Formats: sequence, structure tokens, C-alpha cells
Amino acid sequence: MNYYKDLSQEALIKRRDMLEEKLEIYKAQNLALNMSRGKPCTEQLEISNDMFQYMGKTDITQELDYRNYGLLDGTRAAKTLFANILEVDASEVIVGGNSSLILMYDTIIKAMLLGNNDSDKPWVKEKKVKFLCPSPGYDRHFSICESLGIEMITIGMNAYGPDMDEVERLVKEDSCIKGIWCVPKYSNPTGITYSDEVVDRLASMETAAKDFRIFWDNAYVIHHLYSEHDRLKNILAACKTYNHPNRAYLFASTSKVTFPGAGISCIAGSEANMDFIRSQMSVQTIGANKLNMAMHTDFLKDMDFVAEHMEEHAALIRPKFEIVYKAFDKCLGEKNIAIWNKPKGGYFINLDLMPGTAKAVDQLAKSLGLVLTPAGATFPYSKDPRDMNIRIAPTYPSLEELKLAMEVLCACIEYVCLNKILDND
Amino acid sequence: MNYYKDLSQEALIKRRDMLEEKLEIYKAQNLALNMSRGKPCTEQLEISNDMFQYMGKTDITQELDYRNYGLLDGTRAAKTLFANILEVDASEVIVGGNSSLILMYDTIIKAMLLGNNDSDKPWVKEKKVKFLCPSPGYDRHFSICESLGIEMITIGMNAYGPDMDEVERLVKEDSCIKGIWCVPKYSNPTGITYSDEVVDRLASMETAAKDFRIFWDNAYVIHHLYSEHDRLKNILAACKTYNHPNRAYLFASTSKVTFPGAGISCIAGSEANMDFIRSQMSVQTIGANKLNMAMHTDFLKDMDFVAEHMEEHAALIRPKFEIVYKAFDKCLGEKNIAIWNKPKGGYFINLDLMPGTAKAVDQLAKSLGLVLTPAGATFPYSKDPRDMNIRIAPTYPSLEELKLAMEVLCACIEYVCLNKILDND
Repeated sequence: MNYYKDLSQEALIKRRDMLEEKLEIYKAQNLALNMSRGKPCTEQLEISNDMFQYMGKTDITQELDYRNYGLLDGTRAAKTLFANILEVDASEVIVGGNSSLILMYDTIIKAMLLGNNDSDKPWVKEKKVKFLCPSPGYDRHFSICESLGIEMITIGMNAYGPDMDEVERLVKEDSCIKGIWCVPKYSNPTGITYSDEVVDRLASMETAAKDFRIFWDNAYVIHHLYSEHDRLKNILAACKTYNHPNRAYLFASTSKVTFPGAGISCIAGSEANMDFIRSQMSVQTIGANKLNMAMHTDFLKDMDFVAEHMEEHAALIRPKFEIVYKAFDKCLGEKNIAIWNKPKGGYFINLDLMPGTAKAVDQLAKSLGLVLTPAGATFPYSKDPRDMNIRIAPTYPSLEELKLAMEVLCACIEYVCLNKILDND
Repeated sequence: MNYYKDLSQEALIKRRDMLEEKLEIYKAQNLALNMSRGKPCTEQLEISNDMFQYMGKTDITQELDYRNYGLLDGTRAAKTLFANILEVDASEVIVGGNSSLILMYDTIIKAMLLGNNDSDKPWVKEKKVKFLCPSPGYDRHFSICESLGIEMITIGMNAYGPDMDEVERLVKEDSCIKGIWCVPKYSNPTGITYSDEVVDRLASMETAAKDFRIFWDNAYVIHHLYSEHDRLKNILAACKTYNHPNRAYLFASTSKVTFPGAGISCIAGSEANMDFIRSQMSVQTIGANKLNMAMHTDFLKDMDFVAEHMEEHAALIRPKFEIVYKAFDKCLGEKNIAIWNKPKGGYFINLDLMPGTAKAVDQLAKSLGLVLTPAGATFPYSKDPRDMNIRIAPTYPSLEELKLAMEVLCACIEYVCLNKILDND
């Protein structure tokens, strides 16, 4: 608390009162600012509108009539696109509809009821089913576990990924632990990319459950913000190296490449895993929308085009990340009440406040018309043990809205923290 | 066996030999004819190609930006379309992706693991879970049950629907019976439409399981072949009348209206059911592809347009149904070895042969290059207790292919049946 330490009690109270006035002024403005989700902005959607011209216009009958039934696991071109994105073989890819989340949910609910291809029995027949949840993490992963009755174990995150000592210790001794959630690149929300050592340890570790699975949600695999990219070791290759070829399920989608509500998605993994999933899928569906796949692959052409396209996204959202950094540097820098990261990709900035203040900041912001991702949402059961984490999602608001939102947020943070400091004195 | 009864043993053998020669000739032709699935033909796909022009071209931002996340249960226009098709309220509809089958699977697997909104416990916690399967019925319904470990009880089908005496008796005494599969209009494969009495009895019957559900797969609700339409009583209204508002889940899709591989689908039912499903769905997905919904509803405009569009389909496939009738009348008429129906809609003709001959006919046809829906597939566990049912799916082949296929099929049927008659003599 260096900055405030140099101030007298009187000066601190004065500053708190000044902030209170500032908050009153914001309140009077009836603001309606929303930074709750990692949602692309309208300008980002516009850059994919050229895709529409390809709907039904290409040779949709070369492989099989894409309008009709057939091709359970997707078109050849869509499998190739995701194979290139995830650096796996096209035979290791199954293409889904507009949501990779539903592929994750589906994979887990089927394992619960039926087991996976390495299970002796359905997961639901175990005493308990547990998942490791590196946190802060993605709230929707945790909601899947909660809704399916899976016990979540919070694992700390550091600059290299999950706390691997803890992960290794737990999976080795507890056969009820069936999975771990990972957003390995430009992690949601901490922005870090797993180190090679973390990937190797995940792939090689000894697990008590032989049907243990890594849910490798590579949601931001090509979502760089700067020309210098983070590099992520290939988990599927690592799992093969360490003789656990079936351990990892990989997920990706074009939700933040083309359209969040109308993209294509995939699950990838060993051929044994894919064969097993295909055999179950054949009971569920005749396969996802192939016309949408063709529209996507015709528009996205090749990996060079994809890279250029992602640079267009970056050009639109990088200034937003920088507004956040600038506001934090200016308003919170040297006050020692918050730390934040500056990720090289992804959709989030991770903000850690003084312990015990995140919920209060969230509530105060909300009362002023600024909606954040609910404090705690980035932890299992929405319980941030130290009540300090806030996920900043800067992509959706306009530049002007975001500047104002950051002013409001910084004032809220400082006000809540200052009160805490004064209370503690 | 009137026709053959008038023939001498010698004449029968002569006819059998003649058929054998005929089959040899077909065999030499190396035919490749496929009538296995109820699959629209290419000409049917062509009549929806105008839809492509609407992709992304309409006001996709009026309700919410259809390109972005949001609208979990579908666009207003898509809900209205299915509400009109199923004669329910738009608030009673949730719109899905390109497969209604996946909605059925999903509803059942979630009930297995979590129960439905009227359950005391997950279905998987019951001693056993059983479904009633009016048969012949739709093989993919039965595959869902089989894959999820649900015991299937075969129920006879008659001209008015399932054998309701049997249905009522079973559901009243056995609380493990959690559901019944119904294709109530232009039924797959028997072509009949449930009578008002059957609908009323399904809606009003006493069930031992309070969380019992009717899976009302109205796949052919607007799929008429002739100007005279079958009329189906509204199951949801009936369930409300009899104070079982949550009993029925209704399903429909545009798979055989626009494109089988790229349509839109829905589940419908009471608002309590829909609220429950929405609450579970919110964990799985951000909702199905809204751009595809908008493309569909812009193209399909209103129910008058839909009716005209379905008449275009009928004009293309009616001649195919009539080729089948003509061939059966000519080759099998008065021989008393087969009976078949002439449905007023749907995708199938139901053919019942002499008991104990269907598998042999299927195998013989296959050996000559004619692939049928596998004999038995229309029954639970693929076991037709009397081995007599064959599902004829006439829509996909061309008129010429279909004529040839029917010649081959009729020869196979007569040959197998004649052998059986000769063996029995």
C-alpha cells in the first residue's frame, strides 16, 4: 500500500470523499455500460459479411450434396480447416455446429451416462465424479460441471498454467477425478499461455482414472492481439508421445473468427476417440450443417487468409485492450490495490484486487450502470476464495463507452479499496 | 394364398424357375439401387435454392444482431413459423439447429441423468427405464433408446395409431415406463395418422410415472401428397384439457421442407417444459444458428407460401409413390403374399409380407444390388417378431431407377414367398 501509506489519514478521507462525489456524478448519468461477456463488437462482425455471398454458391455437390443428409463428421474442407488451426490430422477432427460449448457438454453428459472409450463403467456409477478447475477460469465450463453434478476442485493458476504439482498429486491419488478444464492459450481470463513444461506434465502425468480426459478448449488458438504470438505446445502430439493418446479432447470454433452465433466448431483427438464419438453421434444426428461449413471454408480459403482475417480482428480490438491498460496504469498504477496482465491475445484482461473487495466493486459498478462479469464467476460455484478477481471483457463496447466504463470502474475500485484501507487502520 | 392355390404344384415350380431366371438377369446387370432412407431427391432440394439469396441480406439486426451471441431459444420469426406449423403458441417453442433428432436425444439423455421437471429423481436412478415403441416405427427413435440403455416395449400399430388398450394397461401399472415414441401424422412407416380418439386417450390416460412423456415427432406434419390432407388432433391442447400439460414434447423440422442437412428444427410444449429446457440449455449453448433461422423464415414467408412449397415437393414425389403402388398392384395384387398402404402424406409405404419372409427378401434384394431399409429396422432391437415388415422409401431414386427397383423387389418378394409356399406344401 505504498501510495496510500505516504498519505495522512486526513488526506485519505479527503480522497475517499472526492471519489464519492465522482461516483454520485456517474450515478446521475444513468449509464448503461456492459462489459460482462467476451463478445465481439459489431465492427468485428462486419469483416466477415463477405462470407454471405458464398452461401450455396460453390460446388456444394462435389463431395456429396451438402444440402442433403450425410457426412456425419463434417465436410472435408471444414475438417482440414480445423486440422490446420489445431495442428492435428483431418482424420482427428469432427466438425460440429455453431457452438463448441455444446460439444463439450455433450461429451461429458455422454461420459456420465455411458462412460468414454477407456471407461470400465459409466461415470455416474462412480461414488463421485470430480473435475479439476484451474481458476480463475471460464465460467461456462464450471456451469457444465455444476449442472451435471460433477464436483469441482479449484486449482490455482500461475503464469505458466495450472499449479501442476497440485494437479499431479490429485489425479494420481483420486480415481474419481475424471477431467480437467483447460483454456491453454490466451487463457480465459488470465491471458497466459501454458508453458511447454505444463503441456508435457499434463500429457505424461500418472492418473488414477484410466479414463481421465483433458478438456482442451483452445478457444483463442489464433486470436492474437500483437504481431508477437504466444506459442502453445501440441497437446495431442504430447499425449501420443507419453502413451496416453486418448487423454485430450481438443475444441475450437470460429465463433470469434466469423460470427459468434453462426460459426462452426470442432472436437478433435485421437482416432480412437473420434471413432468412439462418431459411433455415438450416429445415433444423435445426421451431422451438422454442411452448407454453413462450406460457406465458412470458401470464405476463409486458407491459413494465410485466416491469419490476415485475425489481424483485422486484432486491429479492431487491440485499441480497446490498450484503453484498459492506460486507464489502469493511470488510475491504479503504484497504488498497490490491483494487479492486471497485458495478454498478447484472447478476449480478457485479468484484474486482481485487494482481497475481499471484488464483490463490492462489482456491486458498486452495477449500481452505477456498469455491468461486469459477476465477481466470483471465474471460480467454481462462483466462489472466489479471496474475493479478489475481476474479468475485464473490453471487446464489445465502443471506444468511447469503454473509456467511460474504465473511468467508472477505476473510481469504484479505488473507492472500495480506500474504504477497506481506512477500515483496517 | 388364393392366386397360387389355383395353380398346380408343377405350375408353381415353373413360375419359381421363371423368377429365378429373372433374378439371374438382374444379377448380371450389377445394379446399384438404394431405397434405404427417407431422403429427398435432388429435384426437391432445388426448389429451396432461392433461399440462399436471403443469407445475411435481411435486417439481421432488428431484434438483436443475429450474427452475435444471444436469443437462446431462437428468433421471433422462427418461433412463429414452428408455432404455426404445430398449432401452438410461439412461447411454447424452442428453435434448434439442423436436426430435430438431436433435440430428442438431448431431451432424453438429460432426463436420464437429471430427470425432467416432473421427476423426483433422475431416470437413471430408477430400477429400469422403459419406453413404449409403437411398431413398425422409426428406427432412429429405437436407436436412441438402445444406445442410452432404455428398455423398449413393442406396441402394435393399427389404422388409428398405437394399440391404446395395451398402452393404457402398461403405463398404468409400470412406473418404469417413462415415455412413448409417436410419429402421429403420416406415420413412419405405416403412413397412418392418429385418430382423435387415440390422441385423447394418450393425453388423458393414467400413468404410474408422473414424469411420463410423449415424444410426438411430427416429422411429416405438413408433408401431404394429395390435396386431401389427413387431420391430426392437437396433442398439446389435449394434454392441457386433461390436466397433463407437461406430458407431450412436440418436434418438427424443415429437413423435408428445405434442406435435410441444413434446416432448422424445434421442440415445443407447455411453458413449464420450455422454461425447464431453456434453463438447462443455457448451460449447453448460446443458442442455435440465427442466421440460418433468418434465411429460412425470410424464404418461407408465411403459411400460404409454405403450403405452396409443400405442394411443389408433393408434385415431385407423388409420381414415385404411384410407381410403387402400380408395381405392387400389378405384380403382387391378388397373390395374397403382401399387403401395403397408400398413405396421403409422409415419406414411406409400409409393406407387410407373408410372415417369415422379410429378411430373406431384404437379403436377396441386397445380393442383386437393391438396398432397402434393413428388414426388422422398424422394430425395437431390429427384431420384427413376425419377420414380415419392409419399409419402402421411394423419394430418393429417379423415376427410372425406381421402376427398375420395384421390378427387382417384386421379383424378390414373389420368389421368396413362392419358395415358402412350396416348402410348406
